[in-house]
Amino acid sequence: MTDAADLLYHVDGELVPAAEATVNVRDRGFMYGDAAFETMRAYGGEVFRWDAHADRLRGTCETLGMDHGLTDADLKDRVDETLAANDLADAYVKLSISRGVQPGKLDPDPAVDPTVVVYVSPLPRGGTAPDAEPVWDGPAALQTVRTQRVPDRAIPADAKTHNYLNGILARLELRSSDADEAMLRDAEGYVAEGATSNLFLVDDGGLRTPSLDGPVLPGVTRDTVLDLAAEEGIPVEEDQLTPADVRDADEVFLTNSTWEVRPVATVDGVDVTPGDATPENADRDAGPLTTLLARLYARRVERVHYGDD
Amino acid sequence: MTDAADLLYHVDGELVPAAEATVNVRDRGFMYGDAAFETMRAYGGEVFRWDAHADRLRGTCETLGMDHGLTDADLKDRVDETLAANDLADAYVKLSISRGVQPGKLDPDPAVDPTVVVYVSPLPRGGTAPDAEPVWDGPAALQTVRTQRVPDRAIPADAKTHNYLNGILARLELRSSDADEAMLRDAEGYVAEGATSNLFLVDDGGLRTPSLDGPVLPGVTRDTVLDLAAEEGIPVEEDQLTPADVRDADEVFLTNSTWEVRPVATVDGVDVTPGDATPENADRDAGPLTTLLARLYARRVERVHYGDD
Repeated sequence: MTDAADLLYHVDGELVPAAEATVNVRDRGFMYGDAAFETMRAYGGEVFRWDAHADRLRGTCETLGMDHGLTDADLKDRVDETLAANDLADAYVKLSISRGVQPGKLDPDPAVDPTVVVYVSPLPRGGTAPDAEPVWDGPAALQTVRTQRVPDRAIPADAKTHNYLNGILARLELRSSDADEAMLRDAEGYVAEGATSNLFLVDDGGLRTPSLDGPVLPGVTRDTVLDLAAEEGIPVEEDQLTPADVRDADEVFLTNSTWEVRPVATVDGVDVTPGDATPENADRDAGPLTTLLARLYARRVERVHYGDD
Repeated sequence: MTDAADLLYHVDGELVPAAEATVNVRDRGFMYGDAAFETMRAYGGEVFRWDAHADRLRGTCETLGMDHGLTDADLKDRVDETLAANDLADAYVKLSISRGVQPGKLDPDPAVDPTVVVYVSPLPRGGTAPDAEPVWDGPAALQTVRTQRVPDRAIPADAKTHNYLNGILARLELRSSDADEAMLRDAEGYVAEGATSNLFLVDDGGLRTPSLDGPVLPGVTRDTVLDLAAEEGIPVEEDQLTPADVRDADEVFLTNSTWEVRPVATVDGVDVTPGDATPENADRDAGPLTTLLARLYARRVERVHYGDD
C-alpha cells in the first residue's frame, strides 16, 4: 500500500478510487476498531489459501458477535473484482469487515449493516521464481520489547481485528533502534510472536514455534510452514520459548502472508546468522533449514498458482 | 449520538453534515484503531473540565507517540465551533484524533497529518437542575464478566484510544442477561472498572474505588467525585476490590462524563439497593451517599456553568 493514488478499492459493494474510499466517522471500525480483517497474497491473480483466510475471518467475526450476513463466495467475488479492476496478478490484498454505523452505544446491535473494504496493492511474486524479488528489505532484526501481548482473556489472539495498537506500541519501542520487528512476550515472559509475524526457530535440525495455547495468532503462513515441515519429515515442537531460546537458536525466521518466510539476522543485537550459511543464501543471511522452507513455500505457491512443478 | 441526521460534525477543520463526515479507509484510525479520544459533556455551551480532558488527551497522544502538532486551544476552538454550529448548549461531545493516512506500514511515521473529528449530540442537562432528566435509563445492573481488562503492560489503561474491543467483548457477554454494564477484572481477579465507567462502592460511610495502579482509566468524572468527597470530608480508599466486596457493599455507583453519577441497583443479580433508600431517592434506587455525591456533582456543574449556587 505504498502509493495508492491510482488504485481502486472495493468499499461497500462499489469500486472506488482509493483517494475517495471512505467510511463514515461513526463507523464502528473507526470509532472502536470494531472490525475483522485478513491480509492475503494473490499470486497469478488468485488469493493464496483463500479458504484458510475465509475460515479465520469467520472465526474472528464469531468472536466479535458480528453476523454480517455475507457468504465467503460473496467476499471472494469482491476480492476478485478488485484484483481484476486493478489488473493485478501478484498483489497484496487486505479484506476488512467492520460492524458499520450503529446507534450511538458501545453495545453492538445484533442487526449489522457491515462495511466491507478490499484494499489491494501490487506486490512482486517473490519466492524462487525466475523474476523473484524479496518482499522484505533484507533479513529481520528482531528486538524483545516491554510491551506485552494482549492476553487471550482480554481479546482472543485468534481474532484478527482492527484493534492493532498493541503491535503499534511494540513497534514504537523500536524507533530508536536498528530493529524492524518486535518480539512480544506473554504475561509469563514466554515469546508469543512479532507485531505482524509468527516466529520460528531451528534447533538441532528441528523447528520450534510458540504454541497456540499462548496469545498467538494462528497465522496462515505459519500453518503452511508447519504443513511443509511435516511433509518433509522435519520435526516440529509447538511449545513455550524464552527470548534466550531465540537468541541461542541455530536459525530464526518469521512468517506472514506478505513476507512469506523471512530470515532473522539479529535478535536483541545478537547475530543469529548461522556460521554455515552457503554462498548461495548468504545474501539473505538465511540458514539451511530457513532456505529450504522458503524454497518449499515458493514451490507450493508455484504449483498451486502457476502450474509449475 | 442517537439520530445524527441533522447534526454537523467537525472533520479535518471543516464542519460537515454527519452523514457526509468521513475518513479515508487508509486512515490509521480505521485500519488499526490508532487514535486518541475524549468523551465530554457541554453544559450551557461550555465543556465541563476541558483542561482535564485536554491533559488526558495529551497523555494518550504521548503514549501513542503521536505528535499531532495541534494546540489545546485549537482543539477547543473546533469543539466550540461545532457546538455553536449545531446551536447546542447541553451536549455530548466526542473529540477524536487519529494518526491519519500514512504510508502502508504498521510502524507509525513520526510525521503526522492527523484526522481530527468532533462529534456532538444533544444531551439534556441532568443532575438536580429544575428541568433535570436522568441521562441513564434507570440505575445500572452490573455483571462480572469473563473478559479481562487489557493489562497496562499490553496497552496502558490511562490511554483512551479507539482500541475499544475489550469493552465491546465485555458488553457482548451481557447480551443474554438483564445487565447493562460489565464489571471487568484485572489478571489477578481484582475489579478494574466497567466497560465505559469507573466504579465506586460505599462501605461504613466511606468510598472505595479501584486504584489507578491497576488497569483503570483515570476518569475525569472519577476525579471530580474524589475531589467532592475530599471537600465533604468523606473518607476514600483507592485499593484492590473483589467482586464480593462490590456485591456486599452498602451502595455502588458508576461514573463517566455522560452518566455523571449513576447508581447501581444489582451486582451479579444481587440487589445492592440500600434498605434505607428515602422516598426522595427511591425512584433512582440510590443510597444516601450516592445521592449526596450526585447532588454535589450537579451543584458543581451548576456553579461552574450556569452561575447558580
